[in-house]
Amino acid sequence: MDKACGFNITIVGLGLIGGSMAKAIRENLKVKNIWAVDLDRDALKEAHESGIIDDFFEDEKIPLSNSDMVILCTYPNTALDFMKNNRDNFKHGALITDTSGIKEKIVAEARNVLRSDCEFIGGHPMSGKESMGYKYSDGNIFQGTNYIITPDEKSNKEAVLLLKEILYTIGFKKIIEMSPEEHDRIIAYTSQLPHILACIMMNSKSFQGSRDVRGGSFRDITRVADINCELWSELLHENKQNILEELEAVMKDIKNISSMIDSDDVDSLKTVFKNSSMLRKEMNYERA
Amino acid sequence: MDKACGFNITIVGLGLIGGSMAKAIRENLKVKNIWAVDLDRDALKEAHESGIIDDFFEDEKIPLSNSDMVILCTYPNTALDFMKNNRDNFKHGALITDTSGIKEKIVAEARNVLRSDCEFIGGHPMSGKESMGYKYSDGNIFQGTNYIITPDEKSNKEAVLLLKEILYTIGFKKIIEMSPEEHDRIIAYTSQLPHILACIMMNSKSFQGSRDVRGGSFRDITRVADINCELWSELLHENKQNILEELEAVMKDIKNISSMIDSDDVDSLKTVFKNSSMLRKEMNYERA
Repeated sequence: MDKACGFNITIVGLGLIGGSMAKAIRENLKVKNIWAVDLDRDALKEAHESGIIDDFFEDEKIPLSNSDMVILCTYPNTALDFMKNNRDNFKHGALITDTSGIKEKIVAEARNVLRSDCEFIGGHPMSGKESMGYKYSDGNIFQGTNYIITPDEKSNKEAVLLLKEILYTIGFKKIIEMSPEEHDRIIAYTSQLPHILACIMMNSKSFQGSRDVRGGSFRDITRVADINCELWSELLHENKQNILEELEAVMKDIKNISSMIDSDDVDSLKTVFKNSSMLRKEMNYERA
Repeated sequence: MDKACGFNITIVGLGLIGGSMAKAIRENLKVKNIWAVDLDRDALKEAHESGIIDDFFEDEKIPLSNSDMVILCTYPNTALDFMKNNRDNFKHGALITDTSGIKEKIVAEARNVLRSDCEFIGGHPMSGKESMGYKYSDGNIFQGTNYIITPDEKSNKEAVLLLKEILYTIGFKKIIEMSPEEHDRIIAYTSQLPHILACIMMNSKSFQGSRDVRGGSFRDITRVADINCELWSELLHENKQNILEELEAVMKDIKNISSMIDSDDVDSLKTVFKNSSMLRKEMNYERA
């Protein structure tokens, strides 16, 4: 795509996602400049020296006032604060997007915070790694993964189209539009719940002494238990109602299975397993 | 090792584990004959034609009466029935072992069932795959994984040593001795619990419509939800008390985390995540 070839893009937050964004853009998209803002000068320097970004600035006003697109790759509330603090610094007509794991609050507040000539579209890549920080960033982590964007009827259609084109160009498999509310409801189940269960597994008192009796199922279920504490406590806090509902549902399901085991109801157990097997097989076909 | 070079070994149940055992033995161990018993003639024929097994028999008496070692790779209760039904068919002094996921019941009943000149040692490989059947068997799935054996003070020391040597030779990383009770208590946590949680995740009413919002954490936590229904309902049924305790503990932990989220207690959430992160990191070091 050529639409972005005259663009200056500023990435705010050069961690795992921001660094991966910078690398994927450098690799796949013709733009004028990629700039970055971060508190971590080492990451900025490393990205600059290796040619991933073209420059970085002490004063964020300078890149922002010249950026056609700004990608916020910080914690959700940090992204909101950044938009508030830089209300007057964004370029006229700038496209601003974020990558954080909750969307309802961000999208609702971004419009209140930004000037009306700026366009905000919320986004969230279904990509990641169990490590954090620029040093683990990788332009290829987006390959084959989906990207959720949350525009609404007030969103500028051209801006939505442009964002989608850019995201496809840098490697995402599918860009899906949904409402912020739908995103937050589903993400509580598909991502926040597995992270909580992983942490619960690790923190169990049964963990000690179990070392030699761990196989693949234990390794996989606990993979994401090495978690960014600050980020995830914020994500859960900001998606409270949805995650509480999911946790309630899991407790109910565990109680049901406990009753089946307790009452020697092997037939019901088989039905549970048959159903999960069928769905998991279908999920594999879906991916193919 | 040369101790087994005059051995006839019979594998009972040529599925994923039995087939993988046959292949790993063929590849790594010099023995006189590898024989197999199974109801699935197709698997037997395929294994025979490809030279993995030397022969198979309609009448199990023939291989058993000439086998120095018998490896039972069936469901737990099938293994017990097989030992009962073939009490008089085993060779004098035969070493009999199993590979099933519960040990207390098997070990306790095996001694009652077998003749006193036969030696039973329970075993359980910490290896597996999310698929079942001979066609998925693979002699390499044991590489780098642990094997639990559950001998006790009555066990013949030479037989224990021989079994360990064979298991190391066919690729296991570490052979660990523990009591059947300890095995069953730990396996409820490290294996049975992750399998149940995987199935609960898949069977959730939130699953429908979540397709595009699934990333790596969802894929990993649900990997083992495609489960052998018959086997797993038997395993849970036979390890009832241990798995009920683990499920109870998880429900309590979910309740705790729910309360933290509900009461906006972000500090406690951070503590939970810090702890899980630290333990998960240590687990990676352990494996290195």
